[in-house]
Amino acid sequence: MEARNLIRFLFLTVIVALLLLFTFTNLPYTLPLTNKAEELLDCSTNSRWCTSKNRFFQSNIKQPPKPTTPLHTADVPHHPLDPLTLNELNKVRSILLSHTLFLNSNTYALHSVVLEEPDKSVVLAWNHGEPLPPRKASVIARVNGQAHVFSVELSSGEVNLVDVGEHSGYPTMTIEDMTSSTWAPLGNADFNRSILARGVDLKDLACLPISLGWFGEKEENRRLIKVQCYSMEGTANFYMRPIEGLTVVLDMDTKQVVEIIDKGKNIPIPKAAGTDYRFSAQNSKINLVNPISIEQPKGPSFTIEDDHLVKWANWEFHLKPDPRAGVVISRVKVIDPITREMRNVMYKGFTSELFVPYMDPTDAWYFKTYMDAGEYGFGLQAMPLDPLNDCPRNAYYMDGVFAAGDGTPYVRSNMVCVFESYAGDIGWRHSESPITGLEIREVRPKVTLVVRMAASVANYDYIVDWEFQTDGLIRVKVGLSGILMVKGTSYVNMNQVNQEENLYGTLLSENVIGVIHDHYITFYLDMDIDGPPNSFIKVNIKREETALGESPRRSYLKAVRNTAKTEKDAQVKLKLYDPSEYHIVNPSKRTRVGNPVGYKLVPGGTAASLLDLDDPPQKRGAFTNNQIWVTPYNKSEEWAGGLFTYQSQGEDTLAIWSERDRSIENKDIVMWYTLGFHHVPCQEDFPIMPTVSSSFDLKPVNFYESNPILNIPPNNENDLPVCSASAESSA
Amino acid sequence: MEARNLIRFLFLTVIVALLLLFTFTNLPYTLPLTNKAEELLDCSTNSRWCTSKNRFFQSNIKQPPKPTTPLHTADVPHHPLDPLTLNELNKVRSILLSHTLFLNSNTYALHSVVLEEPDKSVVLAWNHGEPLPPRKASVIARVNGQAHVFSVELSSGEVNLVDVGEHSGYPTMTIEDMTSSTWAPLGNADFNRSILARGVDLKDLACLPISLGWFGEKEENRRLIKVQCYSMEGTANFYMRPIEGLTVVLDMDTKQVVEIIDKGKNIPIPKAAGTDYRFSAQNSKINLVNPISIEQPKGPSFTIEDDHLVKWANWEFHLKPDPRAGVVISRVKVIDPITREMRNVMYKGFTSELFVPYMDPTDAWYFKTYMDAGEYGFGLQAMPLDPLNDCPRNAYYMDGVFAAGDGTPYVRSNMVCVFESYAGDIGWRHSESPITGLEIREVRPKVTLVVRMAASVANYDYIVDWEFQTDGLIRVKVGLSGILMVKGTSYVNMNQVNQEENLYGTLLSENVIGVIHDHYITFYLDMDIDGPPNSFIKVNIKREETALGESPRRSYLKAVRNTAKTEKDAQVKLKLYDPSEYHIVNPSKRTRVGNPVGYKLVPGGTAASLLDLDDPPQKRGAFTNNQIWVTPYNKSEEWAGGLFTYQSQGEDTLAIWSERDRSIENKDIVMWYTLGFHHVPCQEDFPIMPTVSSSFDLKPVNFYESNPILNIPPNNENDLPVCSASAESSA
Repeated sequence: MEARNLIRFLFLTVIVALLLLFTFTNLPYTLPLTNKAEELLDCSTNSRWCTSKNRFFQSNIKQPPKPTTPLHTADVPHHPLDPLTLNELNKVRSILLSHTLFLNSNTYALHSVVLEEPDKSVVLAWNHGEPLPPRKASVIARVNGQAHVFSVELSSGEVNLVDVGEHSGYPTMTIEDMTSSTWAPLGNADFNRSILARGVDLKDLACLPISLGWFGEKEENRRLIKVQCYSMEGTANFYMRPIEGLTVVLDMDTKQVVEIIDKGKNIPIPKAAGTDYRFSAQNSKINLVNPISIEQPKGPSFTIEDDHLVKWANWEFHLKPDPRAGVVISRVKVIDPITREMRNVMYKGFTSELFVPYMDPTDAWYFKTYMDAGEYGFGLQAMPLDPLNDCPRNAYYMDGVFAAGDGTPYVRSNMVCVFESYAGDIGWRHSESPITGLEIREVRPKVTLVVRMAASVANYDYIVDWEFQTDGLIRVKVGLSGILMVKGTSYVNMNQVNQEENLYGTLLSENVIGVIHDHYITFYLDMDIDGPPNSFIKVNIKREETALGESPRRSYLKAVRNTAKTEKDAQVKLKLYDPSEYHIVNPSKRTRVGNPVGYKLVPGGTAASLLDLDDPPQKRGAFTNNQIWVTPYNKSEEWAGGLFTYQSQGEDTLAIWSERDRSIENKDIVMWYTLGFHHVPCQEDFPIMPTVSSSFDLKPVNFYESNPILNIPPNNENDLPVCSASAESSA
Repeated sequence: MEARNLIRFLFLTVIVALLLLFTFTNLPYTLPLTNKAEELLDCSTNSRWCTSKNRFFQSNIKQPPKPTTPLHTADVPHHPLDPLTLNELNKVRSILLSHTLFLNSNTYALHSVVLEEPDKSVVLAWNHGEPLPPRKASVIARVNGQAHVFSVELSSGEVNLVDVGEHSGYPTMTIEDMTSSTWAPLGNADFNRSILARGVDLKDLACLPISLGWFGEKEENRRLIKVQCYSMEGTANFYMRPIEGLTVVLDMDTKQVVEIIDKGKNIPIPKAAGTDYRFSAQNSKINLVNPISIEQPKGPSFTIEDDHLVKWANWEFHLKPDPRAGVVISRVKVIDPITREMRNVMYKGFTSELFVPYMDPTDAWYFKTYMDAGEYGFGLQAMPLDPLNDCPRNAYYMDGVFAAGDGTPYVRSNMVCVFESYAGDIGWRHSESPITGLEIREVRPKVTLVVRMAASVANYDYIVDWEFQTDGLIRVKVGLSGILMVKGTSYVNMNQVNQEENLYGTLLSENVIGVIHDHYITFYLDMDIDGPPNSFIKVNIKREETALGESPRRSYLKAVRNTAKTEKDAQVKLKLYDPSEYHIVNPSKRTRVGNPVGYKLVPGGTAASLLDLDDPPQKRGAFTNNQIWVTPYNKSEEWAGGLFTYQSQGEDTLAIWSERDRSIENKDIVMWYTLGFHHVPCQEDFPIMPTVSSSFDLKPVNFYESNPILNIPPNNENDLPVCSASAESSA
């Protein structure tokens, strides 16, 4: 037993060292909970990990940040909505740490430090070049285990507690919460014995922190997390090698193991062969296509002023990375082709929440009902984009500057890209046909501007695109790729499975089941069509029967406009056989011929959640009960799953707010749309999924007097670039 | 009155001359019905039109075809599915014209001359390099007013009458039917008086031949068409200047005016200003973006062998233009990444029918319920594509070689294009997140192959794309652009309209209403997943409630597979809240782990027809009663609206065939999918519509053992082209 313990700790040290190495190289600041860290692991004094620990934890040496370009030390804000700069984040940290509440605390962690946006009226009144409104930070901190929201004014150093009411949940995890949770179980001898009993070397262990939702008393009154582990032996794609049925329930604050559930001992760990997706790991490589590239010989047509203000074609908007939402698009304006004025379209749009319930009610799976924005931080999980692959040539890359759990700023480089896209598509066209015989052929190419980020929430990758078209359309597209969350099984072939048995998914490979799940991505869309007071109109397309003798036709479709008076009028479940268009209009503005000026939401990705409304996950994800909601603008209602989503009980969701049934006619209103996907995995998703996308559109509808891109030119051979294969490749 | 008549005839001659000029320059053959032409117009012997007429009609001089590259005179067939060549078409014509039936006829017209495809078994058995099966033509001809289908064997000259049963309708119109119908009303003095009374010069007149559907006795027993006219004065976009309420009912065979309905005399003709969409007609021009291009320094990766066999990446298929379907894709095969064998995916896919009902039951509109393939010929309306605008650089253009009404072949140049597309999208990706801390970022760009055509059915433009992805997915996309069919009105502003009044559409500009309409595009998809015997499986995603105490979860979703036994099992109305996946599987083939090998249909553009099932247009368009149908393969069931669609009564549609409820399990089956759009016009659609697209996917589902593009490389800077602005543009 002595020898075994020694081996165990040797393996332990290697994996922990690796994890810490990453933590320190990527998060250039000292971990919070510094003085508690020692308690979490009972490691041998001789281990390499302990050497690391001594170096970083005890001497409090700050790791130099990895070189990023630019370093952001000279950033200054230029726009009321610009995110907090690196210097501002540092200032917030020092203000808070000298605050009595923090000075007198044993533990604290900053779960969110972002700009507290000025009131909308202030932002709308601000003009370029004017002094900025006072810069404030909105901070979500836990101090001695209690969550608070602070408003911190940067110039005065004033700190105010913000009353956000009573909430059942906890703030978004910090990166430190997540990383420390993955290695905490290794401090538990029972856990380590279980791992070894499965035949897994501790050095090969990879563990994931899995939010456990809320299912009643067991998930109340302390911050818990479930940890499940995988074997990395023989593959970088450890997700395909689950140690099935082993779940560690941790107290996230004390890192204490609360419970170990170990039910899958008879389930083999799936093989490593064929799972690694890295190019370097492929035995055979195949080049299916010649090099292809989007080329812009005169460079891209967009500019990014003051780091965040994007100007392209007829569009202008403010763009910023956000640790929770990922990307926030604000102050979206478009030039009117007649008046040449900038017209307001959207005040703010972002991914408010994701809800990803898995469809397996058994022990190790029932709780997997992720809310990736509120629990994990959708922006925190957005990793640097890969130039030429995530985004084409000529893309502009924007860094995220975020705060770690102790308030220290760090840079997430290349987190967002902006590029122009041309796929060979057609903006508009017409040829005269043989019928009329006129010699006309007029075609305009479609060029768009794309803002992209890709979040890797552990296994899954979400690609979020905001695509702007010159005709005024905004397409919001979500692509799903990455790696499935799979379940181990003893089956290697479907012929072993009794017809009656429910696998909860598809057998993807020997011993691997891809579990059925849904994805819901809920967008916050504060539309301001020519200003804030807007109305929501359902244009119902309904069948009319003709009267006897009225027409040889028996029926036709009629568009019937219904203005929503209150929130409940705007709780929309899409209906295929009772369809509507969904317009946001400015009721005080009409076109020349008298149509209300507006945009319409064109739904896509319409899968709806079918879970029981009383199922605890669906209560928490009740914002998916309808595909569309409209609420009156309320600065505090931004997160569809609630401000404190983690372990929340669902009493602070969009669905609850909407039940107040407030007036929404001719008001500053916010539209919410949920893109939905049902995902029954198939073998093609193994070991990594080809991207599946869905999108919805925001489309001008009587917003312009006429087609706004009538007078753009066609492509002309003389304007296109002259290209040659590069020297390297032609050699 | 004498002077007035003279003026009238002078105007008349100009417009007729223009129309004829087009006809002869575009259709390089003599018109059929030659000896009847003189009767149709009572023109002055001094008119320019009569000069033309004398030259082309009486001396029977054949116009030289416009130079096209290549001239197709040397074309020879290489594949059993290759379309009839120019020489073969000539041969068919001479065989038929020497046939007794034609020799003894007064009038005839060839409505369709296409390859009679060999039996599927023969095509499947044929291998590259083997002699072709006997070449046959399938000819739809009307001889002395009677429609026949002939099978013509080219080598032997044998002509066989094909029994296609009794049908209510008529064959697809010939181009000559359509063009001659547009000028026939000018031979009627009452019509001309009506035009002049509306203040329109006859020289400015543009008329359209409008199929009138079937509404009972009035539309039976003779071939009728309705003609409506527009003013071209001041604009090339005459569609925006309707002479509202004036409808001429013509006998299409005699060109006799049957009835003139003239009800809109008080409705002004909308203004020309702002309607012309041609670049040359724009007063102001705006360049929103810098030049942008898809560049392939080593050229495209596809090859087209023997004119029609497309090979790209892992795909191979046969491609041909078709006068009715537009584009036909056949023998679609994909390379298996493991076995390297070509695997069958689809035997044949094409646009079978379009159904476009307008939603206005009044006199001049109720009958507008177009079937663009069966009535007009979707391929006949596909005009030459505009290089660099309809398709990007490096596109390959394929010509259509069709037969005119008298059987003479002509070339529709550049009718189809094939190109590779790269929009900056992502094929698959994964980065490891901060949670796991591994330094992995693997991303693969998505490059696709697109086959495109664009049909201009008078005002509307349909862009049909077949897009192939390297991961095995086929996306079929339809884009709608072109020009609305609009209605004249006396209103210039919505404030003049009584709330109760139904405009049947949107006031788009002064005196212009865009009438509400639907578009349904029905695709024939003869899927052969690893061979013909396939089954159709609905994978229903249904909620399961957990038993008490089974799980903290109350509910989850379960995939329940139901194999369709007969056609009625496979009549699918999509349901948002009772969703399914729709698989075509090969029941005799399983993956390594035992899943049935298949493809799934992923619906999109899901708008459903809501017309009364007993409404005559819906009876004819009953193939839109469901979004999905599956029928057993039957060579004679290709056209969803029936073989003879024109004025058909709906007794030969897909809906009727499917009611036979034939067995479809483990059979050679055909899937049908209808893409639907509801279109409530908006001012942005005026005067020409920005493209609106929808698509559906055919996606491998357990067809491959795993992700088939795991081993493709990422983009590398060294492989991408080196480009510069061209000399012309940089000057």
